[in-house]
Amino acid sequence: MRNIKLVLAYDGTNYHGFQKQNNTRLKTIQGTLEDALRVLTKEEVKVIGSGRTDAGVHAQGQVVNFLSHTTIPPERFPLALNSVLPSDIVVWEAEDVPQEFHARFDAVKKTYRYTIYNDRHLSPFWRYFAYHVPVPLDIERMSVAAREFQGTHDFRGFCAKDTAVKDFVRTIYTCQVEKEGPLVTITVTGDGFLYNMVRIMTGTLIEVGLGKRRPEEIPGLLAAKERKLAGATVPPQGLCLWSVEYKNGN
Amino acid sequence: MRNIKLVLAYDGTNYHGFQKQNNTRLKTIQGTLEDALRVLTKEEVKVIGSGRTDAGVHAQGQVVNFLSHTTIPPERFPLALNSVLPSDIVVWEAEDVPQEFHARFDAVKKTYRYTIYNDRHLSPFWRYFAYHVPVPLDIERMSVAAREFQGTHDFRGFCAKDTAVKDFVRTIYTCQVEKEGPLVTITVTGDGFLYNMVRIMTGTLIEVGLGKRRPEEIPGLLAAKERKLAGATVPPQGLCLWSVEYKNGN
Repeated sequence: MRNIKLVLAYDGTNYHGFQKQNNTRLKTIQGTLEDALRVLTKEEVKVIGSGRTDAGVHAQGQVVNFLSHTTIPPERFPLALNSVLPSDIVVWEAEDVPQEFHARFDAVKKTYRYTIYNDRHLSPFWRYFAYHVPVPLDIERMSVAAREFQGTHDFRGFCAKDTAVKDFVRTIYTCQVEKEGPLVTITVTGDGFLYNMVRIMTGTLIEVGLGKRRPEEIPGLLAAKERKLAGATVPPQGLCLWSVEYKNGN
Repeated sequence: MRNIKLVLAYDGTNYHGFQKQNNTRLKTIQGTLEDALRVLTKEEVKVIGSGRTDAGVHAQGQVVNFLSHTTIPPERFPLALNSVLPSDIVVWEAEDVPQEFHARFDAVKKTYRYTIYNDRHLSPFWRYFAYHVPVPLDIERMSVAAREFQGTHDFRGFCAKDTAVKDFVRTIYTCQVEKEGPLVTITVTGDGFLYNMVRIMTGTLIEVGLGKRRPEEIPGLLAAKERKLAGATVPPQGLCLWSVEYKNGN
């Protein structure tokens, strides 16, 4: 049995998130991948993702793995799979990995990017890929606040209420705010993320950028561990799972 | 009677071009704008565009004008109109202009940008906004060739066969090739453009960038005035009407 790892990008606009929803016909990334793999390998394949993405959230570097008896060589996999997949999911790389590799359990670092379209005018081109903030954001203030998220903290205050998770401690390696033309991006790398964590961190940073909060408030919000004290959860379409890293640089 | 000028952006993916097609129900930018203006002004309004864009072609700075008795002040127009328009058309500016202003006849300069996604991998995010070229392009060669288009030339060799136009002479003020990450853009400013002209110029520049043609061939292609000697017409989704300029800086 082979264990095959894929790196893929998808436009999540028309999907009900990554994870297959049992007993429904809702279109998901996992379900669509499994359908395409069934066509290609003539097997029932179960796809394991590095993590879920919500409805409307995108990915540049999602990683999945699956077990298969297929004899298709890895270098031919992307082209073969892309010919079966719809055009909003694109497989970039495929490789054979050791039996024990697990896309979710073995992930050691993940990077998400949130994109804000910060211009007086809406742009029709960014409506599915960014959140529109019409009032100018103070990037310097946001950068100062973003640095306060770096380090190991209990992120209970930056997690959606409906979660089964027990351990809220996560380490954020970097949290950077950048501006290029009307686009403001918040790029966060950490060892893991709680449900809605990046979207709540971004909502809070936007409030800092609008002058509604001070950068110095962040440590207090982390210490308080109260969801209602942090900023709003910004909408999904600005979020993109940027990359996933594994041990041994896989 | 007021004469109102609008500047708008649109994602042309789901439209059969700018121009209304009589006796059909095909969705067009002009038809959709006229429908929205009818709702807003309770009048039958005829929209005049600076020029047509083909099916799948986008605009950042399309300019239109229309005559109306509406009493809505110009500063309130964008918001009012955007609330009626679908999200893939966004009005950025509105202003009252002199009676004699005509969006098409008075345009003195137009800029188009063609976007190429130049990476081994396809990107799901650029599938409606760029043309995918998987082989690396030589930007320096393309830039040298692009400069050969600058000046006043007979562009008959760079015009689709099916055209009613008699005068093929156009002046190109600038033609620039730029690269940023996987995106290669060709930005062309001229006093006017023939049918498919930018898409044929781009197709020719891509062949130069792939080493299939030499930059020095461009003057000969212009002089030959034979469509079949120039490069392929690249697909519409990479093209965007970037801006339109008028006399008196309007």
